[in-house]
Amino acid sequence: MTSHLQALIAPKRVALIGASDTVTRLTARPQRFMMAQGFAGEILPINPSRDTVLGLPALPSIDKAGPVDHAYILLNADPAITAFEGCAAAGVKVVSMLADGFAEAGAEGVARQDRIAAIAREAGITLIGPNSTGVVHVPGGFYCTANAAFAATDIPSGGLSVLSQSGSMIGTLASRGAARGAGFSTLVSVGNEAVTDVGTLGSVLLDDPATECFALFLETLRNPSALETFARAAQARGKPVVAYVVGQSDDGQHLAVSHTGALSGARGAISCFLRDIGIAEVTVLDALLDTPRTLAQARPSSARPRSVTVLTTTGGGGGMVLDQISARGVPVTGCGAATRAELEPEGIKLGTGKLVDVTLAGARADVMSRVIRALRSDPETGVLVIAPGSSAQFNPDLAVDPILSAIGSGREGDAPIVVMPLPHAPDVLKRLADARVPALVTPESCAESLAALFTPPARMDRPLPDLPQAALTLLDAAPEGILDEVTSGAVFDALTIPAPRQVVLIPDGSGEVNLRYPVVAKLVSPDLPHKTDAGAIRLNIAGRPALADAIRDMCETVSAPVTGILVQEMASGLGEALIGVTRDPLVGPLVTLAAGGVLAEVLGDATMRPAPVSMETARDMIRDIRTFAPLRGYRGHPTGDLEALAQVIVAVSQICTHPRVEEAEINPILIGGTGVMRLDALIRMGPRTT
Amino acid sequence: MTSHLQALIAPKRVALIGASDTVTRLTARPQRFMMAQGFAGEILPINPSRDTVLGLPALPSIDKAGPVDHAYILLNADPAITAFEGCAAAGVKVVSMLADGFAEAGAEGVARQDRIAAIAREAGITLIGPNSTGVVHVPGGFYCTANAAFAATDIPSGGLSVLSQSGSMIGTLASRGAARGAGFSTLVSVGNEAVTDVGTLGSVLLDDPATECFALFLETLRNPSALETFARAAQARGKPVVAYVVGQSDDGQHLAVSHTGALSGARGAISCFLRDIGIAEVTVLDALLDTPRTLAQARPSSARPRSVTVLTTTGGGGGMVLDQISARGVPVTGCGAATRAELEPEGIKLGTGKLVDVTLAGARADVMSRVIRALRSDPETGVLVIAPGSSAQFNPDLAVDPILSAIGSGREGDAPIVVMPLPHAPDVLKRLADARVPALVTPESCAESLAALFTPPARMDRPLPDLPQAALTLLDAAPEGILDEVTSGAVFDALTIPAPRQVVLIPDGSGEVNLRYPVVAKLVSPDLPHKTDAGAIRLNIAGRPALADAIRDMCETVSAPVTGILVQEMASGLGEALIGVTRDPLVGPLVTLAAGGVLAEVLGDATMRPAPVSMETARDMIRDIRTFAPLRGYRGHPTGDLEALAQVIVAVSQICTHPRVEEAEINPILIGGTGVMRLDALIRMGPRTT
Repeated sequence: MTSHLQALIAPKRVALIGASDTVTRLTARPQRFMMAQGFAGEILPINPSRDTVLGLPALPSIDKAGPVDHAYILLNADPAITAFEGCAAAGVKVVSMLADGFAEAGAEGVARQDRIAAIAREAGITLIGPNSTGVVHVPGGFYCTANAAFAATDIPSGGLSVLSQSGSMIGTLASRGAARGAGFSTLVSVGNEAVTDVGTLGSVLLDDPATECFALFLETLRNPSALETFARAAQARGKPVVAYVVGQSDDGQHLAVSHTGALSGARGAISCFLRDIGIAEVTVLDALLDTPRTLAQARPSSARPRSVTVLTTTGGGGGMVLDQISARGVPVTGCGAATRAELEPEGIKLGTGKLVDVTLAGARADVMSRVIRALRSDPETGVLVIAPGSSAQFNPDLAVDPILSAIGSGREGDAPIVVMPLPHAPDVLKRLADARVPALVTPESCAESLAALFTPPARMDRPLPDLPQAALTLLDAAPEGILDEVTSGAVFDALTIPAPRQVVLIPDGSGEVNLRYPVVAKLVSPDLPHKTDAGAIRLNIAGRPALADAIRDMCETVSAPVTGILVQEMASGLGEALIGVTRDPLVGPLVTLAAGGVLAEVLGDATMRPAPVSMETARDMIRDIRTFAPLRGYRGHPTGDLEALAQVIVAVSQICTHPRVEEAEINPILIGGTGVMRLDALIRMGPRTT
Repeated sequence: MTSHLQALIAPKRVALIGASDTVTRLTARPQRFMMAQGFAGEILPINPSRDTVLGLPALPSIDKAGPVDHAYILLNADPAITAFEGCAAAGVKVVSMLADGFAEAGAEGVARQDRIAAIAREAGITLIGPNSTGVVHVPGGFYCTANAAFAATDIPSGGLSVLSQSGSMIGTLASRGAARGAGFSTLVSVGNEAVTDVGTLGSVLLDDPATECFALFLETLRNPSALETFARAAQARGKPVVAYVVGQSDDGQHLAVSHTGALSGARGAISCFLRDIGIAEVTVLDALLDTPRTLAQARPSSARPRSVTVLTTTGGGGGMVLDQISARGVPVTGCGAATRAELEPEGIKLGTGKLVDVTLAGARADVMSRVIRALRSDPETGVLVIAPGSSAQFNPDLAVDPILSAIGSGREGDAPIVVMPLPHAPDVLKRLADARVPALVTPESCAESLAALFTPPARMDRPLPDLPQAALTLLDAAPEGILDEVTSGAVFDALTIPAPRQVVLIPDGSGEVNLRYPVVAKLVSPDLPHKTDAGAIRLNIAGRPALADAIRDMCETVSAPVTGILVQEMASGLGEALIGVTRDPLVGPLVTLAAGGVLAEVLGDATMRPAPVSMETARDMIRDIRTFAPLRGYRGHPTGDLEALAQVIVAVSQICTHPRVEEAEINPILIGGTGVMRLDALIRMGPRTT
């Protein structure tokens, strides 16, 4: 264990600044809990008004404490800052801070938080919080927390570590986890993340040998790049990371913003970012406890099929489990032919249906163990889900023993097992958890866990910035604000995104027009981003005289300054799309692909990824769009050139690698049978920085 | 209690036919369980090979038992039939049957089931099963079941009754319910429903004074009209009914079919039927236990707003609960202005956000009780959801007492309370359940329960058959099979569904065509239901000579017998739809409305209702179709005549009141700014019955 990790979760000497001697007070809890757990390190209560606190000698201040690797400041906001300055002076490596009244509490709080962040950075302190209910390391009894849930004495040690932006949720998760035998290593309430964020702490905890998987409870995202670094390192080390994100509703999203003092990003931006970096998101609270363990303990070898076999002793309940799993898109298969042939001579009939139901035979442990052994070694089994019936409650051994004996006599590479007991069966859950067999609590959590198990790993191929020099030069020279259509068109030309043939006339509309009619005419002006609404566009112009009339009409109607008239050949395609890039305040550059037209807008048929993207990711995005089905050839429709569309997505996604681009959009891009063609396109630039 | 109900759940004398004296055997369970529960009725084990069974005198056969009101037959299939004949002869009123091997087991099993059904009908017996794990009446200790879960001695008595098509699920639900303090009245494993189905049993149990709500676990639907009768009576008596249906996936649906031996209906047909008759469907297993109690115990008065106020002691966890509720479309509001003004002088600040977070003040029972009292009496509160934090686990009184004291001092018409403790807190759940306050176990179950609470009650206005006489006459005279377009067109004309102006020419194509060109020409033939594929339709014909050419061409290409040429004016609309009626093998006549076009097909943008429907229901159906947004005026689109569309839905939904109509469809119907117009339409007739 590095000294940094040790100071975080297993300090030799921990100071509790503001520890109370009154047992009922919140600020007495960390000391009470650690003493109850037999924490082996030295506990140093800091309380200038007492000689002893809860039986331990009290110190007046941190500078009298000698070397301290971890301090938990339990004082209110302003005294907490003073105490934090003392910690910095005393060379404390890790400081947790309980107080609220910082960034979540208006301008004054933001100023306070800036102050402690500056101190922490200056002193090189890992600061947990403020607004943190603390740090808990279960195996070491380091219950350095003010969260009431850690009065518990039954939280098992194990491989799950929790990082939560909500201080109450570390207690909620520990309590619910303990009830099902889920063992924990470390739980951290990261609070406001003034300095040290979820991702940075995750990277530190990756070195904890006890931690084999992570559960994150997120309300916002303060440092996406640190989270990405953590997630990719975790994937490389085979330690799965699962997140639950508050904000499935607009109300929830707004609340998270006000509760955490963080910015609000686009709806779904956090989810898209998590998926991209390989963090599995769950939507059911139970799954936040069940899925990490399932990913860590039930990953099938790559040689096995990507499917689930459900074995049950009871048709109705097992069918319900199978139904939930299948409803989340996980393929379900029945018993393999080899197993059926192997067991039939022994009088065990497993049938050809998708549910393997042994019914009453399951009441015999030897039969059950035999079936489990055969199914696990059958190469047609991907993951074996076992759903024991009512007997699991009052005869837990009957449910558990055959599983453990089958595992005991199994071989390397056998199919992993996931157990979903149908009744309330805490003893079964605990025995299996101890044996490192994922045992899940509800059909929905089981289904989310299996869906996560079959989600392909994140791509590691995030592309580098790769803008053509011509585009870079144009963007460097561009003014602030929305670029006019001619200027932004030149950028898109430099990205080799095809456009209709066009000419730009001077504002009086005179000049030669060597195009195929009908044409479209648009006023060129940086003040007219919404041309249709402004009356600054005319479609379907049949010839030169009509064009002159249209230009005169538009110029009379529109008062904005006009720098030219863009005349383009009319074009049509098999379908249309929107491609845009934006900078999300939480997760950074995002590229969006949406189907074109009002129906797609009504349906929200759109998909996002962190930008820039590779061709593989662009193809994934296209697959996400349901209303592209006709373009994929549904029912004999002519197919669209979706490969050309993917190339444009890649090119547009690169635009935001220029630091001044705030937004860019092609809407619509026409999708033809061969090639694509951009129609309207715009770019919005941020201020010049020179 | 009627004598019928008494024989079902509280018999004076119950016979256990095939009861075993070997305690470990499944067939010993009913007697063991009832004796353990102190069942007050007389237990009569029937076992010809023993004098006593588990200490009670055994009888050789049912005819030696004297009057018996309930018998549970524990024998295998063929001996079970013999025993059943004995029950019929002995005048037993209610018989449960454990054996499998009936309708779920192929042709031989179906024959067996027909035999017992005939006996039961002849004798007027209420037959539970076959394939039933039995009947349990918790308050009376009548644990007449072979389900192992009922070895439990901690299942509380209460208001929830369960009817399950899966025999194992009565145990699963009792076990999971007991762990949260949910009290049960009656649980019935209805098995194959050879004679007595879920709906019929539900109607019987409505008279049980202890039953205040129902949970149904359904895999199929064998008697929709009995279920409708039960659901409507339950609604009228204020006893809510909630169902969980296996079949959210295709795999699950197929499984339910093979497991129950029932037919397969259309995807979603059961859900649409349940919604129509006022049964709330839940998709989360926990909600099957939580939602019925919530509906029975937390229904707000009609004067209160349809919204939820969430009160918590912990921002993160409370925010998660609020987020889940809002994500299911339930409106969430914060603290009302009156309550804020009332409590601020007392130093209690509740804020203006959507989450009412009292944080540390919530650790004081008097403050919490004060806040709950104020929020409950505030007319701006609809339902008050309380989400206590970690202290609920180790200090349950602190979470429960303020709630009970606030309720104790409350007034008639105060807002109802639903509690969602964040940690694992079984003591809180049990204390609140005993006090008849719904206490829910997961945020998802809480959200589903609240969504059900705010679902409008079912309409009681299912329309009567109302086909115009002209349509009836045509349908009576129609041949079997698909009617040709002229014949079916006459039926739709009789329903006053507008069509384009048209003439029918004789097969050689001669005759006068007094229509506005362009026109469309179609070959009339009962053998050409798919005209486009067959080359039997030509669009956009500009004049009479081109029409003659088109007819000649088509007649040369198509070999089917042609009875005429239908020539119609071309028409266009603002949008299009499909309206169809079918007979679902499970739920009966259904009317479907779908958006027209390939995109809607890809997206499955369609909705169904049991037919016939009223205008109100037709309008609901139109609201369900998301891609009708432009027709509703989205973004300034011209609005379509959706009221005219609703009238056509009503008219088409009536067609299936004619007993011989198997299917009818208008595809497409054009939706104009004023009026609608059917283009292609067909009717398929069943055989003549005379």
